Amino acid sequence: MLDRTEKELLADDGTEGGTSGAALRIQFLGTGNARGVPVYGCRCPACRRARISTDHIREPATLMLESAGARILIDAGVTDLHKRFQPGDLDAVLLTHYHIDHIQGLFPLRWGVNDRLSVLGPNDPAGSSELRYRPGILDFGRISRPFEAFRIGDLCITPLPLNHLVPTLGYLLETRNRRIAYLTDTCGLPEPTSEHLQKHRPSLMILDCNSPPNGPTPQNHNNLEMALAIHDRVAAKQSLLTHIGHDLDSWLLGNEAPGRKNLSLASDGQVVLI
Amino acid sequence: MLDRTEKELLADDGTEGGTSGAALRIQFLGTGNARGVPVYGCRCPACRRARISTDHIREPATLMLESAGARILIDAGVTDLHKRFQPGDLDAVLLTHYHIDHIQGLFPLRWGVNDRLSVLGPNDPAGSSELRYRPGILDFGRISRPFEAFRIGDLCITPLPLNHLVPTLGYLLETRNRRIAYLTDTCGLPEPTSEHLQKHRPSLMILDCNSPPNGPTPQNHNNLEMALAIHDRVAAKQSLLTHIGHDLDSWLLGNEAPGRKNLSLASDGQVVLI
Repeated sequence: MLDRTEKELLADDGTEGGTSGAALRIQFLGTGNARGVPVYGCRCPACRRARISTDHIREPATLMLESAGARILIDAGVTDLHKRFQPGDLDAVLLTHYHIDHIQGLFPLRWGVNDRLSVLGPNDPAGSSELRYRPGILDFGRISRPFEAFRIGDLCITPLPLNHLVPTLGYLLETRNRRIAYLTDTCGLPEPTSEHLQKHRPSLMILDCNSPPNGPTPQNHNNLEMALAIHDRVAAKQSLLTHIGHDLDSWLLGNEAPGRKNLSLASDGQVVLI
Repeated sequence: MLDRTEKELLADDGTEGGTSGAALRIQFLGTGNARGVPVYGCRCPACRRARISTDHIREPATLMLESAGARILIDAGVTDLHKRFQPGDLDAVLLTHYHIDHIQGLFPLRWGVNDRLSVLGPNDPAGSSELRYRPGILDFGRISRPFEAFRIGDLCITPLPLNHLVPTLGYLLETRNRRIAYLTDTCGLPEPTSEHLQKHRPSLMILDCNSPPNGPTPQNHNNLEMALAIHDRVAAKQSLLTHIGHDLDSWLLGNEAPGRKNLSLASDGQVVLI
């Protein structure tokens, strides 16, 4: 954990005007919810489109983030991580929580050789028991705790509490001149998290948006209306929506896209440099 | 469950000489253990070979079996079942046990639409809790119980106890003239299972063989020596080995193959008609 002074220096550095320093590169390995797109057996317009045009497939939400000094994953929803990466490729995996669609990529990877991989997630002994019981190469020695910043390489990382069915943390990841927030799974934002983000405004906010605005009242995820409200409130320079369900994709095929110039839906494989 | 008379008639039908009746078709969707081949980060000869030549890749053990009147899966280790199949394709999934490498393909599939899929496994409430808590389209209404035969389509299926870390059942699957045994995960065979198989000799035995004969004493799986002993004792007409680890594949690259004409290693994608 960083001491208070070091953390405050990083946080006070500003994120918007700076062009000095190395960029952050992110790549979405997956932008879907637990069902993915296409959903098994579904004939909705979005699922039919994704079967015809693989550009529209959504694997479970997983992000790779690279700075000058670190390469990390946030969540492990895609199931072929052991094929995409080799030992030494990753400095750490940050887990938002332990639902299966966020950890399933770690099961085959844990049995690897010639590597140790640090995996940090919230304090949830019950949720993480299956992985911790037989961790293999995974190192669960460190826990993510709300607002206790830590460092991986040149990244300063602050865990932020989210509203979900189980203990869940988003992450604010900062270098000297860049700041990215990754916020899924969540239904709205807890007030302390919202305040922290308003104070430390992200260059890029990646946000849970599971469903269209016309469905049942969300319990564990944002719908589009809620995601837009968070975007407006946090006033991130740019927002990308992830953890997207097929029903949102379908709804957007027949409705106006969200009316914000600096907000869009992420897609699998998309690379962003900030 | 069948009544005793019906079960005995099926079992007394003989399996070897018969050519009448429809054939059974099996396809191995996966023949590997939890690590798969290649293993993350491994540079052994078998893992290097599998990276160069995809014919040698092994996904986690999963079998599809088709008769004239039924199509079932045994275990769900491959993670893309929701892409391989459509609603109505499968009549049931039989689970040997609830270790993650045998059930992980059910997690995305369960969230499908327009289907109900019967999933039968051993009585293990703790092991199956993650799936049962949110079953989605999966129907866990029936339990597999040792030696209590049941019917799916034209298949008569008898669960057989195996030796593993958790409650685990193999399956003997019979039509009028064909009989296939699927026996993984197991370390040796319990005596009642061995006796049942000797009495009801399979046309084809598919058997756990996780490791080479020169490793540490096996605890939860057969090594090659143990698999050969079971093959000889049961005297199946043909045996195919599955749940194969990279260390067994590597060992076989430098050593004589098992000296049995009617025994070989299965491979991913392999189709067998009996």
